[in-house]
Amino acid sequence: MAGMGLGLAAAAMPAMAATPGRKIGYAIVGLGSYATRQIMPNFASCEHSRIAALVSGTPEKLERYGAEYGVPKTHRYDYKSFDRIRDNPDIDAVYIILPNSMHAEYTIRAAQAGKHVMCEKPMAVSVAECEAMIAACRKAGRKLMIGYRSRFEPHNRLAIDLARSGFVGPTRVITAEHGFPIRPDQWRLDRPLSGGGSLMDIGIYSLNATRYLTGEEPVEVMAMESTDRSDPRFKTVEDRIDFLLRFPSGVTATCVSSYSSAHNQYRVIGTEGWIDMEPGTPYEGHRMRIRKDGQVADRAPPPMAKNQFAGQLDHLAEAVLTGSPIIVPGEEGLADLRVIEAIYRSAREGRAVKIAA
Amino acid sequence: MAGMGLGLAAAAMPAMAATPGRKIGYAIVGLGSYATRQIMPNFASCEHSRIAALVSGTPEKLERYGAEYGVPKTHRYDYKSFDRIRDNPDIDAVYIILPNSMHAEYTIRAAQAGKHVMCEKPMAVSVAECEAMIAACRKAGRKLMIGYRSRFEPHNRLAIDLARSGFVGPTRVITAEHGFPIRPDQWRLDRPLSGGGSLMDIGIYSLNATRYLTGEEPVEVMAMESTDRSDPRFKTVEDRIDFLLRFPSGVTATCVSSYSSAHNQYRVIGTEGWIDMEPGTPYEGHRMRIRKDGQVADRAPPPMAKNQFAGQLDHLAEAVLTGSPIIVPGEEGLADLRVIEAIYRSAREGRAVKIAA
Repeated sequence: MAGMGLGLAAAAMPAMAATPGRKIGYAIVGLGSYATRQIMPNFASCEHSRIAALVSGTPEKLERYGAEYGVPKTHRYDYKSFDRIRDNPDIDAVYIILPNSMHAEYTIRAAQAGKHVMCEKPMAVSVAECEAMIAACRKAGRKLMIGYRSRFEPHNRLAIDLARSGFVGPTRVITAEHGFPIRPDQWRLDRPLSGGGSLMDIGIYSLNATRYLTGEEPVEVMAMESTDRSDPRFKTVEDRIDFLLRFPSGVTATCVSSYSSAHNQYRVIGTEGWIDMEPGTPYEGHRMRIRKDGQVADRAPPPMAKNQFAGQLDHLAEAVLTGSPIIVPGEEGLADLRVIEAIYRSAREGRAVKIAA
Repeated sequence: MAGMGLGLAAAAMPAMAATPGRKIGYAIVGLGSYATRQIMPNFASCEHSRIAALVSGTPEKLERYGAEYGVPKTHRYDYKSFDRIRDNPDIDAVYIILPNSMHAEYTIRAAQAGKHVMCEKPMAVSVAECEAMIAACRKAGRKLMIGYRSRFEPHNRLAIDLARSGFVGPTRVITAEHGFPIRPDQWRLDRPLSGGGSLMDIGIYSLNATRYLTGEEPVEVMAMESTDRSDPRFKTVEDRIDFLLRFPSGVTATCVSSYSSAHNQYRVIGTEGWIDMEPGTPYEGHRMRIRKDGQVADRAPPPMAKNQFAGQLDHLAEAVLTGSPIIVPGEEGLADLRVIEAIYRSAREGRAVKIAA
């Protein structure tokens, strides 16, 4: 099918012939809920990735997960001993799943220790940090990838292909909403750790979707924040922040980011119909509906051998093993942070903010 | 059910006992597509409304529709003879279905002729015109109602009741999108007649929905326009204009208005789920889905005896006959225009615009 190759080609690209059997060893940095419940179990279905080491400040976690995943005591680190990963040749890469404000420091220390880096989103809490991370990895000659898992998920890949190939006509509008009612007592609600509220955590999915669905960078943003500061959850970070984006082609996007209501959806509206994803970026259970010629129908993408988590892990591994390009490198995380900073500035100053190319 | 009475009570309110059998006579002013295809056929199912007269600048239309609806030659007018409706006691009210820029003039002339007024949306092309229309009707002691048909449609009534009663928790976010790919060569694309583009025509449904779903008036707006001026349709009016609204309770709304893509939807997202309407404001075929306790299910409102068109026509008739209140008076149209002017200003000046209460 014409125009269908964009995302799938990238998935099929790496030829593994040069490195039969070898698996990239990851050190998991941070043993919180996302690491232990979503990422670590999925190594079992990876072709090219394995858990080589664990890093945590909590000895009980190192003991528990070390035993569970067969990681020997010699391959367990805390944050004081972290830099000694340099001396462990079993570790090829680190996966940083720490609070946002620690991403830059540990990415840079990992690169300086000679390791490749997978870093969770948001890449960091500022553009300046992102730039420093990219520079550190470049200087060390190490790869840097951001954990944008949806790019390895078949519904999202198909949505990208259909949107960019004009399957429902040229895109005119994108709507994207992400949010959930957050529970109190999380580091995500503590600005020094999170760098911001819903936008940094969940609204970034709305933003990132508009960018991967258009393949363009927004040039202007307008944003409006609404936060009840008497809600104990929102003493230091925002609850809701809605934003409008303008893209060079004339496409506009309306986006929702919320920590007090549940949203997980995007829709690409072209001149002849739309592509709707709800839920759009969950861990599992994606649903795509397409409206074309006045008819709405479900559409299922071709299945992929690996789920999005394993696909993401193996993508960096393949890049390390074969030199294949990373589709979500540090520059991708930086591009989101550039817009995020503009969104916050627009909300703060009550004006449209232009984003330099 | 608690909280369910808000919209339905208004519908059930008028007691007709005082005026058995009498029907209010409408003069239809403007015999375009909406008048002839949607409004006029629906008088057949009205209890209290009938077509008494026709006004058009096209003699062939007066002949054709006069014959079809049994309106005698003595009750057919053109725009020069319009003011003579004053002398026709069969005419109680006029229904103004003219291009937007003519609403104010014909509303004022009708009031001065002693007639009640139903005026299509948008009420007029400026706040100043709306205020003049309200003043003229007040001075003449005549009623003024705006043609917001969705307020007489059962799905929308139920959505209002559910949203305002907190059925899915207190509302946090509303998304509302309206648009269609407009065909060229319409008065709607000619600014002197329309007063604006998609916002005046179809985006006003997004705006109006946010207001009736909250029962609040927005206090701040940010808006972004995207119009391809090389498209021959958009030489004088906007194509797309997206906007963000802030309400006093902290609710935010993201809204789409488009003349180049199809949208007809709104969703009220509360802390515990959402109420989704797609299509939300069509002529027929509304669909409501509710998400609550993690489950999505369709919901159908109790049927109403009259469809939205007949309900709207009879609502003014009942107000004339019994003195019952009009739920969408001139002040409702004025409130939309106040926000519309702020939306245009925000887009033009690239800044947040506050709306005075």
